[in-house]
Amino acid sequence: MSLAFQIHAESGAARRATMMLPHAAVETPVFMPVGTVGSVKAVPQHLLEELDARIILGNTYHLYLRPGHELVRRMGGLHRFMSWERAILTDSGGFQVFSLNELRKVTEEGVAFRSHIDGSSHFFSPEHSMDVQVALGSDIAMAFDECTEYPADYARARKSLDLTLRWAQRSRDHFEAHKHERPWSEGFEGKMPSLFGIVQGGMYPDLRRESAERLVEMDFPGYAIGGLSVGEPRELTREIIAATLPLLPKDKPRYVMGVGYPDEIVEYAAMGVDMMDCVLPTRAARHGLLFTSEGRLNIKNRRFAEDQGPADPKCDCLVCRRYSRAYLRHLMTAQEPLAAVLNTLHNLAFYLGTMRRVRERIEAGLPVTDLKMEASQSA
Amino acid sequence: MSLAFQIHAESGAARRATMMLPHAAVETPVFMPVGTVGSVKAVPQHLLEELDARIILGNTYHLYLRPGHELVRRMGGLHRFMSWERAILTDSGGFQVFSLNELRKVTEEGVAFRSHIDGSSHFFSPEHSMDVQVALGSDIAMAFDECTEYPADYARARKSLDLTLRWAQRSRDHFEAHKHERPWSEGFEGKMPSLFGIVQGGMYPDLRRESAERLVEMDFPGYAIGGLSVGEPRELTREIIAATLPLLPKDKPRYVMGVGYPDEIVEYAAMGVDMMDCVLPTRAARHGLLFTSEGRLNIKNRRFAEDQGPADPKCDCLVCRRYSRAYLRHLMTAQEPLAAVLNTLHNLAFYLGTMRRVRERIEAGLPVTDLKMEASQSA
Repeated sequence: MSLAFQIHAESGAARRATMMLPHAAVETPVFMPVGTVGSVKAVPQHLLEELDARIILGNTYHLYLRPGHELVRRMGGLHRFMSWERAILTDSGGFQVFSLNELRKVTEEGVAFRSHIDGSSHFFSPEHSMDVQVALGSDIAMAFDECTEYPADYARARKSLDLTLRWAQRSRDHFEAHKHERPWSEGFEGKMPSLFGIVQGGMYPDLRRESAERLVEMDFPGYAIGGLSVGEPRELTREIIAATLPLLPKDKPRYVMGVGYPDEIVEYAAMGVDMMDCVLPTRAARHGLLFTSEGRLNIKNRRFAEDQGPADPKCDCLVCRRYSRAYLRHLMTAQEPLAAVLNTLHNLAFYLGTMRRVRERIEAGLPVTDLKMEASQSA
Repeated sequence: MSLAFQIHAESGAARRATMMLPHAAVETPVFMPVGTVGSVKAVPQHLLEELDARIILGNTYHLYLRPGHELVRRMGGLHRFMSWERAILTDSGGFQVFSLNELRKVTEEGVAFRSHIDGSSHFFSPEHSMDVQVALGSDIAMAFDECTEYPADYARARKSLDLTLRWAQRSRDHFEAHKHERPWSEGFEGKMPSLFGIVQGGMYPDLRRESAERLVEMDFPGYAIGGLSVGEPRELTREIIAATLPLLPKDKPRYVMGVGYPDEIVEYAAMGVDMMDCVLPTRAARHGLLFTSEGRLNIKNRRFAEDQGPADPKCDCLVCRRYSRAYLRHLMTAQEPLAAVLNTLHNLAFYLGTMRRVRERIEAGLPVTDLKMEASQSA
């Protein structure tokens, strides 16, 4: 199966492309804000649109538990349910099943786990994950994989990868048989969701190679590199990405899951990554950590108490145009709910703005990595 | 001292007027959203502007404790600190000193109390309350009063009123001597904040009369009726308002503090009240209680789980135009921070819209009370 992915320009290994999804034309490289359970936390959808977000992430595990995928399907799918007409990518649920459940039991068939909300018993298989993602109506679904823990020895990583590869085939077969059951058929005649494969293999380049080659044989419309940002040193993350990217088809989108800091997303885009997502800008915002062109600010710090400047003097987001660091600090100190709203808006503006500048540099044929130094400063 | 308050139309006892404050022309009758500690909780200022809020309330007690009135003054005043260019009314701090402090000690000089945040010791006198309000830079400041508790016997209410009247004179004297020290002199040449007197007297009409007459002798530019919504039955609230309004000058604004439900604000406007404020629409929103033309909705109720309709079919606010009851319920159930944002936006739209319709009816010479029945329905 294919997905329209048109590459307009390249600069070094970086690519500037447009990915045509049923609900949106997404300009890549792209950073996707995370909307865990049907909301990018604290941000109204019309302000996400003003930020020019074209695609957001939904978490299959969370949405399956609450409000439930069948309810979402009856409401017309996740786009209509949350009133977000642009694109949505859903993960497979695998990562949360593994990270939020200490009592999970993995078998060939799938994973038994207990809800982190009420302790109730549930079972996810590749087929069930596909059913849930089709019911949610994502533009891009992800294959159900086992996210190999870190550290994992070679034998463990090998065994985990083999299971993930069998699950990838089952995911693909079930998804292709059922993708037409998406809830948004009306007005989308002939448009179908896409399923991406996920490269695993722990921190072993030969396993990563085998994983990539086997997935490419299965012919997915896009490929993710999973199992990173699980506690490994950052240099190792970069090495694994560098080793894996050349193994993936050049004409299809490549997605690194769960990254990263601003300088990381610039670096990975420079290496040829097209898509990234991370809770960092949204989660950090709720704790008062702001990303700026001058580095990271802990806005709760007393030194900002009377700082009349904007969070980021180079930022033109609605927060920086209007509010001072002193006010943002006060909102955190007084535990005002507006703190999460404004901090999140700024951090997303910074991340999306960073990627917009990455795209502009690729279009201009300029080296992307020049942006990295700036993004890595720490105030 | 006078305040430009131009009455355009009347319908029964209700008046339609424009109150010219330094930072805004406020159309009355008006409902003022409460922005306790420098933020109408969960709502960005530009969305308050989109709701056409012209005046909001700030709480002197909260702002004095955090971030501190001297800091706010150094930041250019509350308007600039919170980036709200329209009007602000501040209460005197008296109500919170009395309601949030069990260990307060009242003397002729003022009230000693402990911070509800860290237990530190503080003292508020009429003079200090004026200093704080001038430093905050409110368009309308309120006299420092003792909010008589309910129930209070006659002797207690008498004694409390006498203290409040002496404090009113001290408030007025100090305010007049210092109001020019407001932090927003630049660009506001010749414009000064106004101080309103507060009628007390418990639930005793003769004490209310004495309070009103004595305050009118002091010649305030506007008058509030305080000491209501303190636990008394609603019929008694109405009686006290009805008994007090005729004692206040017709050509000056009349403000009932701390009310109320939608049908109450309509009723009081019909009786001739010009200004009201209440935490109800904002606080209830955070608990999932929505006010609508069909009555109150507890949006957490299971019966809304798959309700695709808007919170209020007759409402054209940004929440009702875009989101379903099912989604709003989901946000509450999943404890998403967006719930507070959207619920608050809707409730404020409903309150401000209700008052807009009250004003339209007065302009058209129609009875205002016809609106009351609709607002009092309970779904």
